[in-house]
Amino acid sequence: MDLTQITNPSFIKSLTKEQMTELAADIRKFLIENLSTTGGHIGPNLGVVELTIMMHKLFDSPEDKFIWDVGHQAYVHKILTGRAGQFNTLRQYKGLSGFPKMAESEHDVWETGHSSTSLSAAMGMALARDMQGGSNYVLPVIGDGALTGGMALEALNHIGHQKTNMIVILNDNEMSIAPNVGALHQILGKLRTAGKYNSAKDELEYILKKIPAVGGKVAAAAERVKDSLKYLLVSGVFFEELGFTYLGPIDGHDFNDLERNLLYAKKMEGPVLLHVITKKGKGYRPAEDDKIGTWHGTGPYKIETGDFVKSTTTAPSWSGLVAETVRKLAREDKRIAAITPAMPVGSKLESFATEFPERFFDVGIAEQHAVTMAGGLATQGMKPFLAIYSTFLQRAYDQMLHDITRQKLNVFIGIDRAGLVGADGETHQGVFDIAFLRHLPNLVIMMPKDENEGQHMVKTAIEYNDGPIAMRYPRGNGLGVEMDEELHTIPIGTWEVLREGTDGTILTFGTTIPMALEAAEILTGKGIDIKVINARFIKPLDTDMLDLLFLSGKPIVTLEEAVLAGGFGSGVLEYAEEKSISDITIKRIGIPDEFIEHGSVDKLLEEIHLTTEQVVKVMEESIVNKPAVKKENV
Amino acid sequence: MDLTQITNPSFIKSLTKEQMTELAADIRKFLIENLSTTGGHIGPNLGVVELTIMMHKLFDSPEDKFIWDVGHQAYVHKILTGRAGQFNTLRQYKGLSGFPKMAESEHDVWETGHSSTSLSAAMGMALARDMQGGSNYVLPVIGDGALTGGMALEALNHIGHQKTNMIVILNDNEMSIAPNVGALHQILGKLRTAGKYNSAKDELEYILKKIPAVGGKVAAAAERVKDSLKYLLVSGVFFEELGFTYLGPIDGHDFNDLERNLLYAKKMEGPVLLHVITKKGKGYRPAEDDKIGTWHGTGPYKIETGDFVKSTTTAPSWSGLVAETVRKLAREDKRIAAITPAMPVGSKLESFATEFPERFFDVGIAEQHAVTMAGGLATQGMKPFLAIYSTFLQRAYDQMLHDITRQKLNVFIGIDRAGLVGADGETHQGVFDIAFLRHLPNLVIMMPKDENEGQHMVKTAIEYNDGPIAMRYPRGNGLGVEMDEELHTIPIGTWEVLREGTDGTILTFGTTIPMALEAAEILTGKGIDIKVINARFIKPLDTDMLDLLFLSGKPIVTLEEAVLAGGFGSGVLEYAEEKSISDITIKRIGIPDEFIEHGSVDKLLEEIHLTTEQVVKVMEESIVNKPAVKKENV
Repeated sequence: MDLTQITNPSFIKSLTKEQMTELAADIRKFLIENLSTTGGHIGPNLGVVELTIMMHKLFDSPEDKFIWDVGHQAYVHKILTGRAGQFNTLRQYKGLSGFPKMAESEHDVWETGHSSTSLSAAMGMALARDMQGGSNYVLPVIGDGALTGGMALEALNHIGHQKTNMIVILNDNEMSIAPNVGALHQILGKLRTAGKYNSAKDELEYILKKIPAVGGKVAAAAERVKDSLKYLLVSGVFFEELGFTYLGPIDGHDFNDLERNLLYAKKMEGPVLLHVITKKGKGYRPAEDDKIGTWHGTGPYKIETGDFVKSTTTAPSWSGLVAETVRKLAREDKRIAAITPAMPVGSKLESFATEFPERFFDVGIAEQHAVTMAGGLATQGMKPFLAIYSTFLQRAYDQMLHDITRQKLNVFIGIDRAGLVGADGETHQGVFDIAFLRHLPNLVIMMPKDENEGQHMVKTAIEYNDGPIAMRYPRGNGLGVEMDEELHTIPIGTWEVLREGTDGTILTFGTTIPMALEAAEILTGKGIDIKVINARFIKPLDTDMLDLLFLSGKPIVTLEEAVLAGGFGSGVLEYAEEKSISDITIKRIGIPDEFIEHGSVDKLLEEIHLTTEQVVKVMEESIVNKPAVKKENV
Repeated sequence: MDLTQITNPSFIKSLTKEQMTELAADIRKFLIENLSTTGGHIGPNLGVVELTIMMHKLFDSPEDKFIWDVGHQAYVHKILTGRAGQFNTLRQYKGLSGFPKMAESEHDVWETGHSSTSLSAAMGMALARDMQGGSNYVLPVIGDGALTGGMALEALNHIGHQKTNMIVILNDNEMSIAPNVGALHQILGKLRTAGKYNSAKDELEYILKKIPAVGGKVAAAAERVKDSLKYLLVSGVFFEELGFTYLGPIDGHDFNDLERNLLYAKKMEGPVLLHVITKKGKGYRPAEDDKIGTWHGTGPYKIETGDFVKSTTTAPSWSGLVAETVRKLAREDKRIAAITPAMPVGSKLESFATEFPERFFDVGIAEQHAVTMAGGLATQGMKPFLAIYSTFLQRAYDQMLHDITRQKLNVFIGIDRAGLVGADGETHQGVFDIAFLRHLPNLVIMMPKDENEGQHMVKTAIEYNDGPIAMRYPRGNGLGVEMDEELHTIPIGTWEVLREGTDGTILTFGTTIPMALEAAEILTGKGIDIKVINARFIKPLDTDMLDLLFLSGKPIVTLEEAVLAGGFGSGVLEYAEEKSISDITIKRIGIPDEFIEHGSVDKLLEEIHLTTEQVVKVMEESIVNKPAVKKENV
C-alpha cells in the first residue's frame, strides 16, 4: 500500500493477518529505501515493525499511551500515525524528528531521546489514570539495554510495589547500541534460550505430582515447592520477584504470538512484563548481520550492498583521536583504564578494548555508576579515562559533584559530542555541559582548537594529578591539521593568542575558532584590527591574559557553541566583576535560553545567530559603544 | 573501656567475644551520651555496633576497604579508628564530621553523604585491585533503603556481570529514613521472615531425593529442578540472579553469626552479598521504638525520657508551611498530587499522606524516577508537587532538563533545604541548585522572603500552568510573621521593593533579606541611602525593575546564599551585558568556588564573608568606585 496515504492507525483494526504481513513488508521496504538517503536509526525500527502494528491493532492510541523508551524506534509508529509523507525530511531542519514529538502528533504522548525514562513516565500516566478514574492502557516499550539504566530500575521497583496496571513491553533484541553487558542481560539470555515458560511449568507440575507423600513435613514442603513454581527453570523470576506478572519470551515477529500475549496482558490486573524477542535490522541483511552496532543509526547507504556513503573528510574523528591517544599513552602508563557507558563504538574505544581488555570497562547504560566507579578507581591510584557524550553526562551531574569534584579525584572525563550535534536534535545537543560543570569546584574544563592540540590535551589530562579534568570535543572530524609526533602537556589555565589585534578581542574555543578568525578577517577589511584568543581552558580562565585585556580597555566578545546562561562568557563577566572592571565592553555570543531542535549544525547556527556575520556585527557595535567612547562624549 | 584511648582498631583482633560484647555496650553508652548533647544520626549507628566491631576484627582496614553508603552510620567506625575524643565536636564547625572524611583518618577511604554510591565506588576499588594484582578485600556497607537508588542497581548489575571479588554487606534495618517502599523491600521482607536459607535448602534436597525416576524426560527435568534450588523458598533469588552469592539473612547483633558468615564470605570467589538484619536504635529504647524515622537523625535529647530539647521558635518550619499549604489547596484542587523520594517526615508530608492517601506517593530513594514520574502525571493534567531537598535534586538534573523543562510540563518542584544546611556539611549544602537550574529553558525559579509570601508562592506555583515552576525554601523555621488568611498569586517575574533608597541597590532573596536590610540600616547611619529589593524570582528576572535600576546609574550589589558561579548575580550580569550596560557597577556576594564544610550556618557565613559587614563594605566601595564618578574625573 501507499504508506503516505495513512492518516491514522484505525485502518489496522480491520486488517487480516495476511494484510498485516503485507503492511509489515511495505513498511520495511519504505524504511530501507527512505533511510538509505536520509540516514537514521534503521536497525531498531526494522525490529519493531510487527510489534508496533499489533499494538495499534489491539490498543487505541492516543487514549492508550504508547511510550517509546529512547524513542529512536518510533519510526513505524510515525508511519502508522500519518507521517510517512514527511520521511524525506527525517532528522533535517524543520523536518520530521527522529524521536517522538508531541508537536508532530497526538499519538506521541511522551518525548524521549535519552534512555530509561519510559517506565517513570508510564508510572505517572498510570497513576493519573487511576486518580482520575480512567481505564486506558499504558504501554511503555523499553529495550533490554535501557533496562540497565538506574532510573528504569528505580521505576520497576516502584511499579512492582504499587501494583499499578501497566503493560511493560520489554523489547529484547540482544543488542542495544553495543552488545549489552551486565547481569540483567545474562538473565534475559537465560530466558531467551530456554524456550517457553509455560511448557516448562507443565513439565514441572507433572514431576511434582509424582512426589510421594512421605509424612506431613514433606507434604507441606511440597506445597511450598509448588508455590515456588514461578521461580523455576526459565520463569521471569527477576521480574516476578519485583511484583510483575511475567509473560514470554515471545517471538516479536510473529503476529499470532504477539496478539495472543497482548490480549492476555490486557486482561491481567497489576503490572505485566511482556518479554518480546526481536531482531534488530530484521528484513535487511546488512543490518541483520551487524554484530557491533554499526547499523544502529547510520548515515546514507547503498541499499544493494549496504555500503555506507563515505564522508570525504580524511581528518580523524574526534572520538577516534582521543581514544587512540589514550591507547598510545596506556602502553607506557599502567594507571590508565578506559570506561564507557554502552558507547564503545561511538567513542571509538574498540582498539583500546582489544589491546587492553583487562583495563577496559563497558558498564552498560549506567552513566551514574560509570562516573562514580571512575572515582573509585582514582582513589587507588589509577587514572581512569571516562568517555561520555556531553548529553549523557547530564545523567551523572550529582556524581560529578558529590563524588568526583568534591573528593578531588584524578578522573579524566572525555566529553564527546560537545556542542550542537545536529540531526539527533534537542535531546542530544551537547550545549549544557559548561553551564552544569563550570560551578563545580576543583574541576578543570578544556577544549582544543584542533586535533593536534587535542592530542596534547589528552596528554595534559593524563599527566594532571591535581583533581578531575574534563576535555570537551565535538561530534565529527577534526580539521585535518598536521599532527606532532611528540606529545607534550599544556600548562593548565593558559590561553593562546591566535591572531594579534589592537581594536578588540574575540575570546573563543573549540569549534567556533574558525568563525572568529573569519570574522577577524572581515573586520580587517573594514579597518578594524581584532585579536583572536584560543580560550582553551574554560575553567580556570587565563586570568593573566584577561587582566591584560581589561587593562587595554578594548571591547571583548566571547563566542561559544554552548548555552549563554552560566556559560563561558558568564565566567568572563564574573571575573570582570570580581576585578571590579566596569569600564570595558564585554559582549557574549552563544546559545540562547531555549532548546535547539534538530537539523544540520550549520542551519541551526544560522537560526540562533551564531554566525560569522553576528560576530562581526557585535564586535563593530562594541567598538562604537564602548564606554571609553561614551566618556569622551560626556 | 575508655574509648578515647583507642588509636587504631588493631586491639580488636585479640578481643574475646565477651570483651567485644563489653566494647559494644561501651560504644552504645558513649553514643547515647554524646549524641544527647550534640545531636546526630543515633538510630543508624546504634544498629551497626556489632557489625562494625566484627568487620574490624576480621578485616584489615585501611588495606581492606570499608565503604559506608550514605555514611551517617560511620560513627562506630570513627570511634574504633581513634576519633572518640572528638565526638564532643561532632557536626560542629571545624569539629568531627558526621560522615566519612579522608582528611580525618586513613580508615575513611571514600567520602559519602548522598545515598547509593558505595557499590560503584567499591567496584572501582575492586577493579583497581585486580589490575594492580592486589589481594585486599572491599566491603561496601549499604542499607536496604539505599539499595533502591538507581545507581546502586546499576552497580549491582555491573558487579554481578563482572564477577568481581567483593563482599557487599546489606544492612537491612527495615527502615531507611522512612519506612521503605518498593518491591525490593518486599523481597527483603520475605527473606527476613522466612528464616534461614540453608535449612530450607536441606529440606528441599530431602524432598527431591524422594522423587522417583519415571523415565528419562522426568529425570532430566528433576536435574533442572535441582539446579534451580537456589530459586526456591527463601533464597536470595534476586541477588543470585544478578550473579552474587547470597549469604543470610543473619542476625547483625550476634557476633557468632557475623563471624561465621564474614569468614565464609572471605573465602568465596566472586561477589558475595551478605544480608545482615539489624535493628536501628538498638540498645536505646526510644530509638528502638521509633516507627517513622524520628530517631534517624536528631538534635539534642534527654537521655532518660528520650524527649527532644525543644527549639524555642514558634514560627512554622518551612517544610511544614509548604506541605500544609499544598494540602489546603489540594482539598479544592483535585489535580494536586504529592511526591517524595523517601522524605515524608523531613518534607512534613505526613498530614497530606493521611488526608489524601490516593494522591500521595513515596517512591523511595529514587530521585530520578520521582522527577520523571511527576512529569508523567503532568502530561495527564495532574499538578504534581514534588518535595525534594536541594542537594538531592542534584541526582535528577537530567530529568529536570530532558523530561520536565524540555517538555515544559506543569510540575511544581519544592526545593527544600535550599542554602547552607549546616551540620550535615559539604555533601548536603543546598547551594548549587540555582547554578544547575538557571540555564534550563522554560523553568521559573522563586524564593520567598518569609512564610507569608511563601504560602502565596505555593498558591502561585499551583495556579501556574505554563511549565515547570520551582520554589526554594531553606532548612529550619520561618520568621514568625503574620499570615494572611486569603491566598493570592504573585505575578511571575516581579520583584518587590522592600526599602527605598537613592544611592544604590541591594538585590537579594530568601534568607539573605534580613542581612540586606540590616546592611541598609548601617549604611543609613553613614549617610548612604540604599534601596533593598526582594528579588523573589530568580528566573525570570524582573527586567522592568532592572531596566530602571540600570537607568539610575547607581551601583547594584547582588547577595545570595548560593554559589556565585552561574548564580543569581551572574544572571544580573548577563542581563546587563544583554542590554549593553557597562557604565554601572554591579558587584556580587555569594558562595565562593569551594565546597563548604559542616558547622553552624552562622559560622559558615562568617567564614565565607557572607555577612552584613561584607554587604556594607562592598556597597560602600561600589559607591566610591562607580564609573559615573570616574567619568567626572576624566
